[in-house]
Amino acid sequence: MTTSNPQQTSAYHTLDLEGVRTFIASLPSIAGRLGGTPEDWHVREVSDGNLNMVFLAEGPQGGICLKQALPHVRVDPTWKMPLDRTFFEASWLRAIFPHVPDLTTECLHFDAEQFILIVPSLSGHTVMRTALMAGQYHPAVAAQVGDFVARSTFATSLLAEPFERVMDRRICFARNQTLTRITVDLILIDPYHDHPRNHWADPQLTPIVAALRNSPSVLARIDSLRLHFLSAPQALLHGDLHTGSIMTNGTDTRIIDGEFATYGPIGFDAGLFVGNLILSFFATPDRAGQAAHLDMIQTFWTSFTKCFLDLWQNREWAEDRSTLYYATTDKSTQNFEKSLFIQNIFQDMLGFCATEIIRRLVGYAHIADFSVLTDQPTRTTRQKAALLFAKDCLEQKKPLKSLADFLELLYQNLSTP
Amino acid sequence: MTTSNPQQTSAYHTLDLEGVRTFIASLPSIAGRLGGTPEDWHVREVSDGNLNMVFLAEGPQGGICLKQALPHVRVDPTWKMPLDRTFFEASWLRAIFPHVPDLTTECLHFDAEQFILIVPSLSGHTVMRTALMAGQYHPAVAAQVGDFVARSTFATSLLAEPFERVMDRRICFARNQTLTRITVDLILIDPYHDHPRNHWADPQLTPIVAALRNSPSVLARIDSLRLHFLSAPQALLHGDLHTGSIMTNGTDTRIIDGEFATYGPIGFDAGLFVGNLILSFFATPDRAGQAAHLDMIQTFWTSFTKCFLDLWQNREWAEDRSTLYYATTDKSTQNFEKSLFIQNIFQDMLGFCATEIIRRLVGYAHIADFSVLTDQPTRTTRQKAALLFAKDCLEQKKPLKSLADFLELLYQNLSTP
Ligand SMILES: Nc1ncnc2c1ncn2[C@@H]1O[C@H](COP(=O)(O)OP(=O)(O)OP(=O)(O)O)[C@@H](O)[C@H]1O
Ligand SMILES: Nc1ncnc2c1ncn2[C@@H]1O[C@H](COP(=O)(O)OP(=O)(O)OP(=O)(O)O)[C@@H](O)[C@H]1O
Repeated sequence: MTTSNPQQTSAYHTLDLEGVRTFIASLPSIAGRLGGTPEDWHVREVSDGNLNMVFLAEGPQGGICLKQALPHVRVDPTWKMPLDRTFFEASWLRAIFPHVPDLTTECLHFDAEQFILIVPSLSGHTVMRTALMAGQYHPAVAAQVGDFVARSTFATSLLAEPFERVMDRRICFARNQTLTRITVDLILIDPYHDHPRNHWADPQLTPIVAALRNSPSVLARIDSLRLHFLSAPQALLHGDLHTGSIMTNGTDTRIIDGEFATYGPIGFDAGLFVGNLILSFFATPDRAGQAAHLDMIQTFWTSFTKCFLDLWQNREWAEDRSTLYYATTDKSTQNFEKSLFIQNIFQDMLGFCATEIIRRLVGYAHIADFSVLTDQPTRTTRQKAALLFAKDCLEQKKPLKSLADFLELLYQNLSTP
Repeated sequence: MTTSNPQQTSAYHTLDLEGVRTFIASLPSIAGRLGGTPEDWHVREVSDGNLNMVFLAEGPQGGICLKQALPHVRVDPTWKMPLDRTFFEASWLRAIFPHVPDLTTECLHFDAEQFILIVPSLSGHTVMRTALMAGQYHPAVAAQVGDFVARSTFATSLLAEPFERVMDRRICFARNQTLTRITVDLILIDPYHDHPRNHWADPQLTPIVAALRNSPSVLARIDSLRLHFLSAPQALLHGDLHTGSIMTNGTDTRIIDGEFATYGPIGFDAGLFVGNLILSFFATPDRAGQAAHLDMIQTFWTSFTKCFLDLWQNREWAEDRSTLYYATTDKSTQNFEKSLFIQNIFQDMLGFCATEIIRRLVGYAHIADFSVLTDQPTRTTRQKAALLFAKDCLEQKKPLKSLADFLELLYQNLSTP
C-alpha cells in the first residue's frame, strides 16, 4: 500500500453519484463484482456519520460500498481535516481482515490519491444502534463483537507476533494523529472542562457535570486514562467501536469504520462498545429490554475473555520464544498472570466505558438512543442516571472487581432516581 | 536528518586512521574545530565496546570523537548487523541534547552514507566503570546521572509534549529494531534458557542459574518485564545506560553511546544504571568502597525523583491542556498520583536492575568489574551473592517497597555467603 501524503492531492476531487459510477467503471475487478454495465447500477448516498461520504452501488450480481474522505468534517465544513483517514481505515482492514474475515469487510480497493476505500456492500444489514433502538436484541451479536475484539487485538499484539512486526504496524498507525487527536480531545479532555463544543439538552444535567468536574478522583482517573490510552500500545484498536460501527442482520455481524485505528489498550475498544450498550440500556423503556442489555454485556465479556484466552493457549506451541509469555512457568503462575492481564483489561474497560457515556451525553457528538424515550422528564432522569453511573465507575468508591459488581451497580443506578 | 537506509550503502567503506583524517579534512566546520592542518592532527583508535569503530582526533585547538558503524559486531565479524545504529545514536543525541547539554555530547555531524557520527572529544574524561574499578567514587556523578535520566526522559514523555510530537519520535525509534532485538534476546530471554551465547566462569554459579530457571515467579516476572519493555513507551530511553556509557572527570559527566535508544519504560534506564552500580558493589573488596556504592545508589534515586518531580511541577503553567496530567485536581490527589507514577518507575527499576545483573554474569556480554577481585573464591562468592540478590529482587518474597528495603536486601546478600 502506498502511503498517503495529504500534500500530493492534486488529483483529488470529491465524487458525486455520477462520479462514483465513473470511478467504479474504471476498475474492472470492482465493475465485475457488480455485473452488467454502468447503466444497470443503482448508486445512492448513505452517509450518516460525521466525517465521510459513503455510497452504495448495486448491480445485477452484487454490491459495493464506496467511502471517500472529505477535506473537512462532513457535518461541519468549517472544521478542516486531512484526507488520510481513509488510508488508515484501509490499512486497518488489511491488518485485521485475515484474523476476522467473518466479522468485518474486505478492502477491495484503496485509492491513495482520491482517498477512496471500497468494500463489499452489507445491503441486508442494519446498523446495530438502529436495531437496538427498534428493540431488536440479538445476544449472538454481542458474542460476535466479543470475538471480534479478542481476535483483532490478540493477532496484532506482542502475544501473537515478534515485536518487530508489532513495531512496524505501530509505526504506521502512530501517523493517524488527526483522528487520535479527536479521541483525546472529544472523549478524554473536553467534557471535563468548559469548551464550546460541549452541550447538553437539559439544564438538569448541569449539576452532575459540575460534580464530575469537581471530583478530584474523577479528574485524576480521566488523566490516568488519557495517559494510558496514549502510552499502552497493546494491540491495534478499532478506536471507535460504538454501536454505529457495527452492522448486523441478527446472524451475520460486521464491524465497519476503522478509521480511528491506533495502537492502544485493548480495554479501550471493549469500553467503547460496553459504554454504548449502557447508553442504550438507560434509553430502554421496558424491563425486558433492559435485562436483554445486561445479557449482552455479560455475553460480550464472556465471549471476549474466552476467545482471547483460547488464542493465548494455542500459542504455547509457538516456535519463536520471544512471542511466548508465561509459557515456561508452572500452570498456576501462568493462570495467575493471564487472569491479571484480563483483569487489567477489565479495569481499563470500566474506565473507558465511563468516558464514552459521559462524552455522548455532554460532549460534542451525541447519540440517537435517548430519542426513543419520548417523555422528556423520563429521558432526563435516565440521562442523569447514566452520568451518575459513569461517575461511580470512575470513582469506584466501592471497588468494582468483577462483571457482577459492575452489573449490580448498573441496576442500582437505574432504580435510584 | 535524512533517514538511514541500509540498502543505500554503495558509498560506505570502513575508515582507517588515514581515512578518518581525510574525512575530517573534508568537513570545514569539524576541521576548524581541530585547528591547524590535517598533518597537525593526532588521530588514534579507542574502540573498546562490542559494536563500533571509535576514533579520537586532536588538533591544536580541540578534539573530536568519530564513531562509525561496521556491517557486523566489532568483536565478532561473523555476527552481521545493519549499519543504521549510528543513525539512531545521532537521532537520540539531537532529541535529548537541548535538554541535557551539560550531560551529553552534541552531534556535530552525521553522515547517513558512511554511518559516521562526530561529537566533541572528552579527552580528560574516564569511563565510569574504569573509575569505579580504580576505587574512584564520586557521589556527584551519581547525582548527575539521576538528573540526566530525569531530564532526558521527562522531556520526551507525554508529560512534557503534545502526544503528536511524542508519536513522531516513537515512529523514528521504533525502527531501531536490530538493537532492540539484542536487548530483548540478550537481557530478557537468553539467560533464562539454554543458549550457546550464555557463559559463566565458575561452575559454582550453575546451581543458581538452575534455580533462576526453575523459579516460577522469576520466569513470570521476566516475561512481564519483557512485555512491559516492549509495550510501555513512556519516554525516549538511552537503552544501554551501563557504567561504560558514562564518561566523567569527577566534576563534568557525559552520557555517551545512545545507539540502543528506544521508547520504553523510564525504569529501564534507571534499572540498568543501578544494576551496574550493584555489580560494581559486589566486586568491591572493601567496606568503605561498598558503602560508597550504596551512597551512589541513594544519591542517584534521590536526584532522579527530585529532578523529575520538579520538572513536572513546572508544567502546571503549560498552555496546552492535553499535556497536563493531574494538574486540575486537588493537591493531595495530585501528590498521590505523582508518587504512584514514581513508585511504578521504582518497581520497574528493581526488575530491570535484576535482569542486568543476571545477564552480565551468565549471559553473552560480561563486564570487567569482578576482575579487581584477584582471589578466585572471593570472586565466585561475590558473583553468587549478586545473582541471589537479583533473584530476590525478581521474586520479592518480601516486598521491596522503598529504596531502604532495597539497600537493606543488598547488604544482607553481601554478608550471607
Ligand atoms: N459496507 C457497507 N455496506 C452497507 N452500508 C454501509 C457499509 N459501510 C457503511 N455503510 C453505511 O454508511 C454509513 C456511514 O458509514 P461509516 O460509519 O463508515 O461512515 P463515517 O462517515 O466514517 O462515520 P463516522 O462519522 O461515525 O466515523 C453507515 O452508518 C452505514 O449505514
Ligand atoms: N566523546 C568521546 N570522547 C572521548 N572518548 C570517547 C568518546 N566517545 C567514546 N569514547 C571512547 O570510545 C569508547 C567506545 O565508545 P562507545 O561506547 O560509544 O562505543 P561502542 O562500540 O558503541 O560501545 P558498545 O559496544 O558498548 O555499544 C568508549 O568506551 C570511550 O573510551
